[in-house]
Amino acid sequence: MERSKKVEDSKTIMTEMIMPDDTNPLGNLMGGNLMRWMDVAAGICAAKHAESHVATASVDNISFHLPIPLGSVITITATVTRAFNTSLEVFCNVVTAEITGLNERRSNQAYFTFVAVDENTLAPTKVPKLNPETEDEKMLYKGAIRRRELRLLLAGRIKASEATEIKELFQP
Amino acid sequence: MERSKKVEDSKTIMTEMIMPDDTNPLGNLMGGNLMRWMDVAAGICAAKHAESHVATASVDNISFHLPIPLGSVITITATVTRAFNTSLEVFCNVVTAEITGLNERRSNQAYFTFVAVDENTLAPTKVPKLNPETEDEKMLYKGAIRRRELRLLLAGRIKASEATEIKELFQP
Amino acid sequence: MERSKKVEDSKTIMTEMIMPDDTNPLGNLMGGNLMRWMDVAAGICAAKHAESHVATASVDNISFHLPIPLGSVITITATVTRAFNTSLEVFCNVVTAEITGLNERRSNQAYFTFVAVDENTLAPTKVPKLNPETEDEKMLYKGAIRRRELRLLLAGRIKASEATEIKELFQP
Amino acid sequence: MERSKKVEDSKTIMTEMIMPDDTNPLGNLMGGNLMRWMDVAAGICAAKHAESHVATASVDNISFHLPIPLGSVITITATVTRAFNTSLEVFCNVVTAEITGLNERRSNQAYFTFVAVDENTLAPTKVPKLNPETEDEKMLYKGAIRRRELRLLLAGRIKASEATEIKELFQP
Amino acid sequence: MERSKKVEDSKTIMTEMIMPDDTNPLGNLMGGNLMRWMDVAAGICAAKHAESHVATASVDNISFHLPIPLGSVITITATVTRAFNTSLEVFCNVVTAEITGLNERRSNQAYFTFVAVDENTLAPTKVPKLNPETEDEKMLYKGAIRRRELRLLLAGRIKASEATEIKELFQP
Amino acid sequence: MERSKKVEDSKTIMTEMIMPDDTNPLGNLMGGNLMRWMDVAAGICAAKHAESHVATASVDNISFHLPIPLGSVITITATVTRAFNTSLEVFCNVVTAEITGLNERRSNQAYFTFVAVDENTLAPTKVPKLNPETEDEKMLYKGAIRRRELRLLLAGRIKASEATEIKELFQP
Repeated sequence: MERSKKVEDSKTIMTEMIMPDDTNPLGNLMGGNLMRWMDVAAGICAAKHAESHVATASVDNISFHLPIPLGSVITITATVTRAFNTSLEVFCNVVTAEITGLNERRSNQAYFTFVAVDENTLAPTKVPKLNPETEDEKMLYKGAIRRRELRLLLAGRIKASEATEIKELFQP
Repeated sequence: MERSKKVEDSKTIMTEMIMPDDTNPLGNLMGGNLMRWMDVAAGICAAKHAESHVATASVDNISFHLPIPLGSVITITATVTRAFNTSLEVFCNVVTAEITGLNERRSNQAYFTFVAVDENTLAPTKVPKLNPETEDEKMLYKGAIRRRELRLLLAGRIKASEATEIKELFQP
Repeated sequence: MERSKKVEDSKTIMTEMIMPDDTNPLGNLMGGNLMRWMDVAAGICAAKHAESHVATASVDNISFHLPIPLGSVITITATVTRAFNTSLEVFCNVVTAEITGLNERRSNQAYFTFVAVDENTLAPTKVPKLNPETEDEKMLYKGAIRRRELRLLLAGRIKASEATEIKELFQP
Repeated sequence: MERSKKVEDSKTIMTEMIMPDDTNPLGNLMGGNLMRWMDVAAGICAAKHAESHVATASVDNISFHLPIPLGSVITITATVTRAFNTSLEVFCNVVTAEITGLNERRSNQAYFTFVAVDENTLAPTKVPKLNPETEDEKMLYKGAIRRRELRLLLAGRIKASEATEIKELFQP
Repeated sequence: MERSKKVEDSKTIMTEMIMPDDTNPLGNLMGGNLMRWMDVAAGICAAKHAESHVATASVDNISFHLPIPLGSVITITATVTRAFNTSLEVFCNVVTAEITGLNERRSNQAYFTFVAVDENTLAPTKVPKLNPETEDEKMLYKGAIRRRELRLLLAGRIKASEATEIKELFQP
Repeated sequence: MERSKKVEDSKTIMTEMIMPDDTNPLGNLMGGNLMRWMDVAAGICAAKHAESHVATASVDNISFHLPIPLGSVITITATVTRAFNTSLEVFCNVVTAEITGLNERRSNQAYFTFVAVDENTLAPTKVPKLNPETEDEKMLYKGAIRRRELRLLLAGRIKASEATEIKELFQP
């Protein structure tokens, strides 16, 4: 019988304080530094679910709405949304607050895709299935198919006519 | 008369060597570090075109096809594809080679969007138009509208029915 | 009526992967880097409880039992154990696992003391009381008095004869 | 005949200037960064005395009295206080001054314990004896036994009743 | 027939923005950080020409005329000026501008010498000849002999009486 | 009466261990990182003598003879050789040893020139005279005039015919 794991089993939390060496010349967190932290948190989460090394395969659209000033505290929560054959999608949610913990708000979100790789051969290895439990987990699990189709479409690996899930969105 | 600038005026090149402190535990460039460098190169390019400070607004899908091992040299080229009212899109192309300069190959690409901001008020400021000249520049310029529509759609800021450019792709 | 807060309100989790630039020449996590991360996590926790900036006042004895090799994942959990007038004690617990999430084990623990300071004057400010709930929380709360006495004794700020809590331990 | 070495033989001095990337959001040296530097200086000193690689085993209580502002210069002096069988204790003294060299003052002190390890097997290796010469060196040498007893007691590796050196301090 | 390469073949451009963690306590780029970047850019250029690993052998006099403030953008251009038997000279030119691209000016220049080394044995390896084409390239190529003589003289490896090129400069 | 200070008053020692994140892809200390450390040590020394902030004005020829492998310990000693009106020259000597303290050898040397600047106006400020005492100090003091002449000559700020000290070296 195939193994399956829960979302909670690999949920990863990373809290960081914005120090001077994380900022840009305007005194806010540099977008690139946030992406670096998100990649680490998402990678730890993916490796824990896959029980293997992983390599970043892609990152979907990331939006940056609000400047995050020096001294802010950010909390990155990474959870697996769905496991495919040798790859898996991780949702990365970033919440920002003042150093005092006050004024908490959602600031960024992104979907990362990782490939599980063998430590020695670097060949892709099989990933345990994900077993979503809550309503939120099930919604993210369902949407993963559509996001994957969009990625393949953007990468030119399928044609628009093959993107059946997305096509449906544009039906009258 | 409105000012316009050429692609060449703000083209930005960043060459880096993968040092031990840029690598992941497998000895390859960490995905997050590459994203950080791309964000800096793209941001320099955007600020030079806009002649103002800029803030990262979003990054489109980035794919990572090949591991980039310790000692590799990467060359990031950032060029403006199109300027909108107070924002602009930058295309970031990454080429990787061995330290000897041999075995050069394309490794990553991404589109970044930046908002031009006033240094003091941080309010959005107007951006000079882009004047594409070569065939490649014109193609990137044209595609920018479609990519922007996709971003607004993914961000939930327009409905599928309003995404006229994308919709066309799914017509029979 | 005086405000009081729960342990859970400021509990802070920081997960990190040991990258090449965190290691010492033997390829294991450098002790000093671990201390730096623990200080950040404990400081975020303290600031959140105090709802103010904080400054590290002291760190109790830290032991390093096991080498933590490159690629390991560490999870630092910081919780307030007790709030005094303008200072508070934070317990910092470090758990280490392989990148796969397997082979998890306790690796380090330490108590940090912080002083809450006003952002502008840097003068000490009053800290909300802690309200311990679970058995573990109550035990840590109770022990905080003895650890504080030990710190004052080591710092030469009280005499051995005044260290009533510690003295008791040495009674026949 | 057993080898013995002098304190001066391994005395290690590390001078650093507080740069923007060493500071916290209040513009002072981050406590964790100071601990990192102390660990490096103490480790170099220990390795030089032991003539082998070393691993940090523990750090005693460190106090932080004064904020150390951006641009300050700190001088860390590390000296071996006593060598045991396969471990040794290092005293780390931190002096701070303004960039001009003026306004010099003691800011921190800590005792580090290191285990000497074989580079290949990582097994503990024998450490040369320390031969204290000055009055200060002899005092630190003598106190090392008591501090060691306290560490074992705090680590729960001896009972209060066995801590004969410390017990004496609490006699009427 | 001996291989020869053009200057353009290995020309290397590195663009960087001065972030807070590159600055000194006065808020300008730290001289040492600029030297580090120049060494990386020059080393990439040398390795590309030599088609082998390289080790920095020496850096000639570097002058720092103007403070480069936080938020500036620097562009380092490295070009080979001449190849000797197993070593080569690289000219490194630094141009600084405001983040807006305005107010561009030359800020630093330096000549680096590298030795081409075999990746495995680290023994020096032969370097392809340089074939200068433009007037500027020819002038740099010609001057390389005189600069090399000065280096050998400063290093005490030739006597003043043997420095025929330099001696000529001092003839009446 | 004019103030004068001794060499010993501002002598600065910086000891560092070569960690993985200081190395190049061959596993040795990157030349640029060594230059960065030398600049910091020399700058601390200069500021202490000048009792003011300082800015790096120039660095003379630096040679790199030996690769410094991961895990080595380097000791940088910086001493003022001579003070001019508003500038001063610092000699920077680098000694390398294995982590065990064994196999110690000279590895690099360089002369740095700094300008003393007022913290607020950044205008050059007067520097106390240096009073050399030992034979070595006197020799470095005397040579400073010749090195300064060479710097002015290389910078094109004096003509060969005006370089009276250097010219003498080339007399028959």
